[in-house]
Amino acid sequence: MSCVFCRIVQGAEPARSVHEDEHTVAFLDLAQATRGHTLVVPRVHHRDLGDIPLDTAERVMRAAVEVSRRLTGALGAAGVNLWHASGETAWQSAFHFHFHVVPRYADGDRTPPWTEVEQPVEFLAGMARSIRAWRIEM
Amino acid sequence: MSCVFCRIVQGAEPARSVHEDEHTVAFLDLAQATRGHTLVVPRVHHRDLGDIPLDTAERVMRAAVEVSRRLTGALGAAGVNLWHASGETAWQSAFHFHFHVVPRYADGDRTPPWTEVEQPVEFLAGMARSIRAWRIEM
Repeated sequence: MSCVFCRIVQGAEPARSVHEDEHTVAFLDLAQATRGHTLVVPRVHHRDLGDIPLDTAERVMRAAVEVSRRLTGALGAAGVNLWHASGETAWQSAFHFHFHVVPRYADGDRTPPWTEVEQPVEFLAGMARSIRAWRIEM
Repeated sequence: MSCVFCRIVQGAEPARSVHEDEHTVAFLDLAQATRGHTLVVPRVHHRDLGDIPLDTAERVMRAAVEVSRRLTGALGAAGVNLWHASGETAWQSAFHFHFHVVPRYADGDRTPPWTEVEQPVEFLAGMARSIRAWRIEM
C-alpha cells in the first residue's frame, strides 16, 4: 500500500486525527501552514477531481465544514480557508484526494495565491459560451 | 437586495454563467486569476462555513466538481484548484458563500498562498487532542 493517506486511513501509519466519520478521516498536516492546518481525505482512494465520485466529494465537503467549525471553536481561529489541488500543475503533491482546512488568525500573515485581473465582459461572455457548450461535445 | 451574488442568482445582475443546477449557480469571476476562473454559489444566501447548512455545502461541492471537469474539458486546463474563504481574515470579500474554481495551465505561474512548516509530532498530538475534545465542551 504505497499511498500514505490510505495507510493513515487503515491505521498503518500514525496520524493526529481530529475528526472521523463513516466516509472520511481528518488529521493534522505534519507541515502546518497555520496552527491547526488539517487534511480531510475520503477513506476510499481517489486521485483528484477527475475521478472522485460526486457523492464522495460531497462527503469530504461535509467533513471539511465540520472540521472548520471544530478548528474555529477549539483554536479560536478568526477565519478559515479551504484549499484543494488537482494535478501537479495545481501543486498537488499527494495523490489521494484531499482538502486542506487552514484556520486563519490574523490579516496579512499569508500571501494570496494569485493576482486577479479584470477582463472585458465580452471576452468572458465568449469563454462562458464555450464552457457551457462543452458537455454537448462529449 | 444588497448582495451581488443574490442579484446574480435572481437574474437582476448580469453574469457569464457556465453551469447551473437546482441548488447552485456558477459564473465566471469578473477578475480572472486564470483563464476560466469561476465562482460557484448556492442559490440561497449563506455567509460562510459558520452558517451554511451541511446539505447546501455538499451541493456547492458537487457543482464545483462538475464545473472543474467542464473547465478541464472545455479549456484544456492541466490542473484545478478549489479555493474558499470564510472571514475577512481569510481574504473573504463577498459575503455570500462561494467556491473559487481555478483552472491551472502551467507550473510556476502562481505563488502558493502559504509556507508550510514541519512541526514536532508531540506538539501536533496535543493540539489534535484539544480539537477532538472541542465538541464535548459545547
